[in-house]
Amino acid sequence: MTSPPKQCQFIKQEEVARGNWISLNKIHYSDPTGKERVWEAVYRTTKQSNSADAVVVLPVLRRNLKFDCVILVKQYRPPMKNYTIEFPAGLIDKGETPDKCAVRELKEETGFMGICKHISPITCLDPGVGNTSVSMVTVEIDGDTKENIEHKTNLDDGEFIEVLIVPLNQLLVKLNELSESGLSIDSRVYTYAIAQEQAKHIKPVNPDQEQIEPSISTEYLK
Amino acid sequence: MTSPPKQCQFIKQEEVARGNWISLNKIHYSDPTGKERVWEAVYRTTKQSNSADAVVVLPVLRRNLKFDCVILVKQYRPPMKNYTIEFPAGLIDKGETPDKCAVRELKEETGFMGICKHISPITCLDPGVGNTSVSMVTVEIDGDTKENIEHKTNLDDGEFIEVLIVPLNQLLVKLNELSESGLSIDSRVYTYAIAQEQAKHIKPVNPDQEQIEPSISTEYLK
Repeated sequence: MTSPPKQCQFIKQEEVARGNWISLNKIHYSDPTGKERVWEAVYRTTKQSNSADAVVVLPVLRRNLKFDCVILVKQYRPPMKNYTIEFPAGLIDKGETPDKCAVRELKEETGFMGICKHISPITCLDPGVGNTSVSMVTVEIDGDTKENIEHKTNLDDGEFIEVLIVPLNQLLVKLNELSESGLSIDSRVYTYAIAQEQAKHIKPVNPDQEQIEPSISTEYLK
Repeated sequence: MTSPPKQCQFIKQEEVARGNWISLNKIHYSDPTGKERVWEAVYRTTKQSNSADAVVVLPVLRRNLKFDCVILVKQYRPPMKNYTIEFPAGLIDKGETPDKCAVRELKEETGFMGICKHISPITCLDPGVGNTSVSMVTVEIDGDTKENIEHKTNLDDGEFIEVLIVPLNQLLVKLNELSESGLSIDSRVYTYAIAQEQAKHIKPVNPDQEQIEPSISTEYLK
């Protein structure tokens, strides 16, 4: 019988530098062999413990006689020195729930009023570099209501956001065009587009066919 | 006739602190009203100009009589102080193409040999905080070859990675279970799962129905 593999363990962290919003840190941890290693990491100084920092909204717009669309935002992102195409998103206010935050941010940034359909667990945005965590919230918008036909944005000071309404069945093509025009596409938006495209080609499940695959291969799961 | 809106413009950047891998910076830019603003940003010190820093691999495993699966990796991520579930990924070597990098990283991290099916344009990972850019590369794996049945990993020093093979049609449920067990799920992986799930419910296009929606609403596109 072999003993289970050792786990990596957090040891300590040192703050190297601190800005108003983010700080640069060194994380000391031990690898499974027991060796101490160092990793550089960025932290948000505004982080509230045990909750997501922000929500990312996946907004699906449904209208009579029109193809289902996804709503995206275009804005200048100083770290990229460029305009980006992203899902609507925003930091969660203190005491706010992810679903309330998603509906609020979507309304502020795009003018659309939607209904929360699904909330993800806390997910990580760029785990090799930072500890930013987000809830992905799926929001459905009835585009035929008076409020949504006349949708008006309500932006914070310093926010300059344009709204894009893209039919889901053309998303990948449109993202490629926007990228070619010089914009940066967010990797979550592009992943969403690839998955939608792939789903068109997944072989339908044959109910008569025995399912050989276990739910998750336990070969590697410890 | 109204004049077109002014654009945000990059002015200059100051390095606040520099580690071996990442640096903390202040970006000065002007907003569309001409007002100068400051934004904090993290940069990779290893960045090569005009190319993606890394690839993120979307690996689909196809096998005879088994459901299509996605291959994910579990590893300790010091910035998260936790184990994460992510797509296989890695930094692009100097002079390497994204497709070669994707096939190499997939082989090293998971042992599977795949074929590149699609390469995204350069996308951004966390554009509100940093300038990390990645190519998303879709790779298809024939799981019935001898090499892939016996897949063996070839990890770098300091890499300790476990491989997960998850049927696409159960991905969302399995990610929720993994999250409940205490792991952090990468937001791209979760977005992929949501999109796959949503695609099941998209109404089929009726070819007799006139397409009213323009390819992109130009109402907001400037």
